[in-house]
Amino acid sequence: MDFLSLKETEIADKLKDGKIKVCVIGIGRIGLPTALVFAQAGAKVIGADISEEVVENINKGITYIDETGIEEILKDSISSGNFIASTDVPSAINEADAIIICVPTPVDNNKNPNYSDLMAVCRDLVKGLKKGSLVIVESTIAPGIVEEIIAPFIEEKTNLVLGKDLGIVSCPERADPGKIFECLKTIPRIVGGINENSSNIAAALYKAAMGVKVVKVSNPRTANAVKLTENIFRDVNIALINELAILFEKIGINIIETIDAATTKWNFIPHYPGPGVGGPCLPANPYYLIQVANRVGYIPYLVRLAREINDRMPDNIVNLIFEALNGIGKPIKGSKIVVLGISYKSGVKDVQYAPAERIINALKKYDTEIACYDPLFENEIVFGMLTELSVEDAIQNADALVFCTAHAEFKQLNLENLSKCVRQPAVIVDTRNIFDSNEVTNAGFAYRGLGVPIS
Amino acid sequence: MDFLSLKETEIADKLKDGKIKVCVIGIGRIGLPTALVFAQAGAKVIGADISEEVVENINKGITYIDETGIEEILKDSISSGNFIASTDVPSAINEADAIIICVPTPVDNNKNPNYSDLMAVCRDLVKGLKKGSLVIVESTIAPGIVEEIIAPFIEEKTNLVLGKDLGIVSCPERADPGKIFECLKTIPRIVGGINENSSNIAAALYKAAMGVKVVKVSNPRTANAVKLTENIFRDVNIALINELAILFEKIGINIIETIDAATTKWNFIPHYPGPGVGGPCLPANPYYLIQVANRVGYIPYLVRLAREINDRMPDNIVNLIFEALNGIGKPIKGSKIVVLGISYKSGVKDVQYAPAERIINALKKYDTEIACYDPLFENEIVFGMLTELSVEDAIQNADALVFCTAHAEFKQLNLENLSKCVRQPAVIVDTRNIFDSNEVTNAGFAYRGLGVPIS
Repeated sequence: MDFLSLKETEIADKLKDGKIKVCVIGIGRIGLPTALVFAQAGAKVIGADISEEVVENINKGITYIDETGIEEILKDSISSGNFIASTDVPSAINEADAIIICVPTPVDNNKNPNYSDLMAVCRDLVKGLKKGSLVIVESTIAPGIVEEIIAPFIEEKTNLVLGKDLGIVSCPERADPGKIFECLKTIPRIVGGINENSSNIAAALYKAAMGVKVVKVSNPRTANAVKLTENIFRDVNIALINELAILFEKIGINIIETIDAATTKWNFIPHYPGPGVGGPCLPANPYYLIQVANRVGYIPYLVRLAREINDRMPDNIVNLIFEALNGIGKPIKGSKIVVLGISYKSGVKDVQYAPAERIINALKKYDTEIACYDPLFENEIVFGMLTELSVEDAIQNADALVFCTAHAEFKQLNLENLSKCVRQPAVIVDTRNIFDSNEVTNAGFAYRGLGVPIS
Repeated sequence: MDFLSLKETEIADKLKDGKIKVCVIGIGRIGLPTALVFAQAGAKVIGADISEEVVENINKGITYIDETGIEEILKDSISSGNFIASTDVPSAINEADAIIICVPTPVDNNKNPNYSDLMAVCRDLVKGLKKGSLVIVESTIAPGIVEEIIAPFIEEKTNLVLGKDLGIVSCPERADPGKIFECLKTIPRIVGGINENSSNIAAALYKAAMGVKVVKVSNPRTANAVKLTENIFRDVNIALINELAILFEKIGINIIETIDAATTKWNFIPHYPGPGVGGPCLPANPYYLIQVANRVGYIPYLVRLAREINDRMPDNIVNLIFEALNGIGKPIKGSKIVVLGISYKSGVKDVQYAPAERIINALKKYDTEIACYDPLFENEIVFGMLTELSVEDAIQNADALVFCTAHAEFKQLNLENLSKCVRQPAVIVDTRNIFDSNEVTNAGFAYRGLGVPIS
């Protein structure tokens, strides 16, 4: 089938009838749910990944991705014959009408964007691509990567005429980990193609498969700019609140009380302070834009500063731990500090760029005993440590309990019971404003909270 | 009446029955509408101001404030006997149960907060205040000004026992110029008092007079922090979009298209680029917080940088004018440049910190001929220039038309007709994204827009 020659109106029916073949490359946190939504909508989907272990497990119906209901949907899709995983990426590409790229685009230790997975996919694309197919880049990338790198690379290495024989669009994923299926089916998609037909076909496909509104923008780079703008908006606003949290604590103002009150104004939206910003997107995305800006001789000072502020938050938390222990007359040296919550986000099993790692590594330098517990990582090796089996196990003889993730489980804790397990006096350091300070002190702990003045 | 001894539940009835006397000090853009809303709700209101001209005009029913319907409400309130203006501030204070302070708190040329009007009010307060009254500070001030300056000053200079004989609260105004009456009656108020009774009485009073929800916070400084946080949030987000606008223009991306697409994500809210941020609040408020922060040895880098980015936008616009004229082969020297829109905000007659002033002053250095037109400032002396009577008058023989305010009138302009009045080739520089670029070029102008790439 020459997919690009279909009429837009034909696509929904063809999809439902199992006539559209989709290849999703990179079946991780975004790619697998995306592949499964296409499979559920009727597409014949191959999930392609270079990891033999991932492919083998997924074909058995097993995945480490902790989105609600994913294993059931996976098993259904396998048994219906609409989904299979494969390590043979070029063959998967060759069979597909639409090739959806969902590989990660992280930054390296020097904060430089690392597009190596994406370039590996490009090398497979030129081996496998056939005439009439559509390449869809969902990975978050800098504006210009499609137009200046991916498209010229394919054009040079194949005899496909771009726009005519081959469509290319950017359609950045906009889903939030922890509720990806919900996001895929509700949040409008942004599509920017190298030509109008690419955009139209991609828009019709997503509309049919996901049931969402699709916004067509002028070109791939604009679609990429939209995604980066959204995430940079969040990063900047979290940085602002982190900056204010630290200031307000010093001048006797509670940041949470302030945010809650400000939120009653129609044009203010709340962001909350925390020990740092983790996850696959926010700690990396701004650097994609910074790199592109630097190439045209422009320094986006605000984007860069916001990133730096959030990147330094773990150090501020270490300082807060120092102060908290000092408040109960203890040094960090020789104390037992328990980190509660190592995921970067509540309810999500993911430690990518998690601030807990930075905090733990910083504490290790101070000759302290560290334990950590996370309900999503019980008895696992994380950050080179074995996580504890329960909060109670973790906090035996602890001097400081540092809450780094606002997991729902933590809000249910009986602090009074916990205060009997620790080495009193002990302090709770709440970096996520999980607890009310009175609740903590009434339970027999000293209290320090991020953005909460010492009362 | 000992106003502070009233039960909260009595206040609405007393207000309706004309038993509550209110003094509003500073009857400008916020103070006058506030005074009138209290008068309409039944209070006996004295509007106190040191300007004899303002007081005299207002008592005749005349005001320069251009809020919809204000003169009618003013005349009604005067004839009902519920409102009168006076220059005798101490007497007005002495008669009142509640004294509401609405004087401006600008920054000086060195960006230092200037609280001189507020301190003048404090000197009048200690002359006039009587036992049982409530002082309400609506002016935007730094956290701590009430607790560390106003309250101790009153306590020292009077024999009133704070909290018992005298209540003090901060209840920062949150109204947007252009729709102040609407805001006063819909946006919740934030009240933070020096003690609980002050907060309760003030909350009951605003609830009764304005019909709005009132959020009580711990103390005056928190109420002030809420107001600053709201406005700094806006300033930072506008700065981010201004930074991105300049970058995106360089890398071939339209900022408005990007913002519109990003707005389809639930947790993104749009802010728009512009020639700078004017008005009484945003260009000043961040400095109140910066000053307080500096006193405790903390530099709020992000707040400061955002303010600097917005403060430099007029220079970016001058550069855009250079490029725009260069694009049609003309230098600034000897060209006629017409600034269209001098108000800082569309539909509002106010040039406080208006970016148009900075742009005009910068252009003057380049030996150019400048004219300006604003539908709200026809034939007036503004920035040392006489404004024109019409767009057509202004643009005779012009080389560049620079739109600095998105007045609704400008959106209705017939650009084709305008293109016949100018000295062709001529260029439209659109700093507010009022026009579509094709519309402008089809009408016979060259086009440059802020955040719009050269096509």
